[in-house]
Amino acid sequence: MAKKKRMTGTHVVGMDLGGTKILAAVVDQDGRIVAEAKVKTRPEKGPDAVIERMAEAAREAVSRLKLSWESIRGVGVGAPGPVDPDAGVVYHTPNLPGWEEVPLTSQLGESLGVPVFLENDVNLGALGEYMLGAGQGTTDMVGIFVGTGIGGGLILDGKLHSGYRHAAAEIGHMILLADGPVCGCGKRGCSEALASRTAIERDIWLGIRAGRKSLIPELTGGDPERLTSGVLAQAMREGDPLVSEVVGRAQWYLGLLTASIINLVDPEMIVFGGGLIEALGDDFLLPIRITACQYFIQQACADKVRIVAAKLGDHAVVLGAAALARQKAK
Amino acid sequence: MAKKKRMTGTHVVGMDLGGTKILAAVVDQDGRIVAEAKVKTRPEKGPDAVIERMAEAAREAVSRLKLSWESIRGVGVGAPGPVDPDAGVVYHTPNLPGWEEVPLTSQLGESLGVPVFLENDVNLGALGEYMLGAGQGTTDMVGIFVGTGIGGGLILDGKLHSGYRHAAAEIGHMILLADGPVCGCGKRGCSEALASRTAIERDIWLGIRAGRKSLIPELTGGDPERLTSGVLAQAMREGDPLVSEVVGRAQWYLGLLTASIINLVDPEMIVFGGGLIEALGDDFLLPIRITACQYFIQQACADKVRIVAAKLGDHAVVLGAAALARQKAK
Repeated sequence: MAKKKRMTGTHVVGMDLGGTKILAAVVDQDGRIVAEAKVKTRPEKGPDAVIERMAEAAREAVSRLKLSWESIRGVGVGAPGPVDPDAGVVYHTPNLPGWEEVPLTSQLGESLGVPVFLENDVNLGALGEYMLGAGQGTTDMVGIFVGTGIGGGLILDGKLHSGYRHAAAEIGHMILLADGPVCGCGKRGCSEALASRTAIERDIWLGIRAGRKSLIPELTGGDPERLTSGVLAQAMREGDPLVSEVVGRAQWYLGLLTASIINLVDPEMIVFGGGLIEALGDDFLLPIRITACQYFIQQACADKVRIVAAKLGDHAVVLGAAALARQKAK
Repeated sequence: MAKKKRMTGTHVVGMDLGGTKILAAVVDQDGRIVAEAKVKTRPEKGPDAVIERMAEAAREAVSRLKLSWESIRGVGVGAPGPVDPDAGVVYHTPNLPGWEEVPLTSQLGESLGVPVFLENDVNLGALGEYMLGAGQGTTDMVGIFVGTGIGGGLILDGKLHSGYRHAAAEIGHMILLADGPVCGCGKRGCSEALASRTAIERDIWLGIRAGRKSLIPELTGGDPERLTSGVLAQAMREGDPLVSEVVGRAQWYLGLLTASIINLVDPEMIVFGGGLIEALGDDFLLPIRITACQYFIQQACADKVRIVAAKLGDHAVVLGAAALARQKAK
């Protein structure tokens, strides 16, 4: 068990545990990042080694501030895949091979001597945007993050809604096209199979292989690894017909996804994050907004639906993790 | 303005304002209906006349108990279509022609001399099931009511979640088949256009007109008005191939709808209500459960998803309205 401490610290540490890197940030009472550290995850060394590297990253970030650990109220951690926040356990996650029911909060808490709190990373990204980013001042907000997959987080009544089985906000697996393309989850027609970066890339390379004209082979040298969000944005700006069509279709599906979410939960605001949104900005959101507002069932107040871009970029998760630690470490 | 009263009554009145009838029920502290009254709505006479008939129904129910109005703490009303619970206003609703921003709670409160509280009828149906029906003992529950349309209600964290624009739980307009059949709302692919009673009837009559074999022409004499839930249930039991296929397809879509809701909100329980479910019982839910659990993203806990039939039947709305009045009249 972690040593008991009086939780009187002024600062908190937010951590983002990813498959390739671990990010630690010391966050002050105003929600500002005052120190950061980054280390490689090296997941192949197993959970114990990764947790020790997490502790190192946290210590390094705190030491940069010349802050004593007495000032640290708690540590919040965002981890990929399904987690049990109450038990502090990370379940099996594809990004961290060998992790099966790892008691992360107790192990890391033991190592650091402060209370550690856990939540799913995408949930914390949404919490970060809600507390300190685009969602500030709202009470009900849904974050949608479009990357290789589509993830999300629900803030309802001012609180993160993680669900009865801690499985809420799996927005990428809402079904938009019954019997549509196969998803990574093995089912068909999920939003992730229609509108994620992976779906966009799939359709672009399929088009190119079938002989359609596009700037992408030239811009990437034919290397799928080089088809970044920046390259997609460049191709869009230069009027690439294939990329414009494929991205436009993804935007249409994201509009339907947004409408479905609004028709179910009716939040004040939808915040879109992820690489494509960062690369294309509001241009990416405009068609999504148009489709979503058309499919929103209460047309009388369709103009009150706010669909905006995320503000915190790569820092959303650590800031959300810090907010979690501040909420929980009382 | 309604006369101010001390809200010390032991009983509440729950009311269900429908397009054809008005139901009023006196409900005691244990959530039991102890008296009821029913009157015709006669919506063609306009809002003022309808509200006076509502007052009559409430008075009649109370008088049957030989209870003084001093014992009535408040009145809850479930009304169709979009409402503003805070303002007590009913907006335009297709079932009540001529109703445009009607200040229902102030008018009815003035007439009855007790506080009146308003909510959407389907939301109150879900609240009723949560407080006194199938959802008792849960904290997060979603009600799905399959009728001529598909409606619903969300109970999150023990409270009715009506949304930022009072537009939540429009489950019938979550999109399941992008570019699918046209919905009554004018858009395409909504769950209501795929799995409501209206969608089922549409596909059955289309099949019959195209020459497909079915017991329905015999069972109904070819009269669409006679194609009730009971008749559909009978045709299913007798192995009608057309009805089995059409209802089976609707069940599949209801399974996908359920999965989408669970993947977004992750409630403890999904409660299905409406005529078809009442007529077919658990047989109707079995295929829905199978599809939903397959499409639920967290397979590790798929067995914990509870999908059950509603228990309160036609009394769900008045009981939910009574619960609302008890919560609000403090």
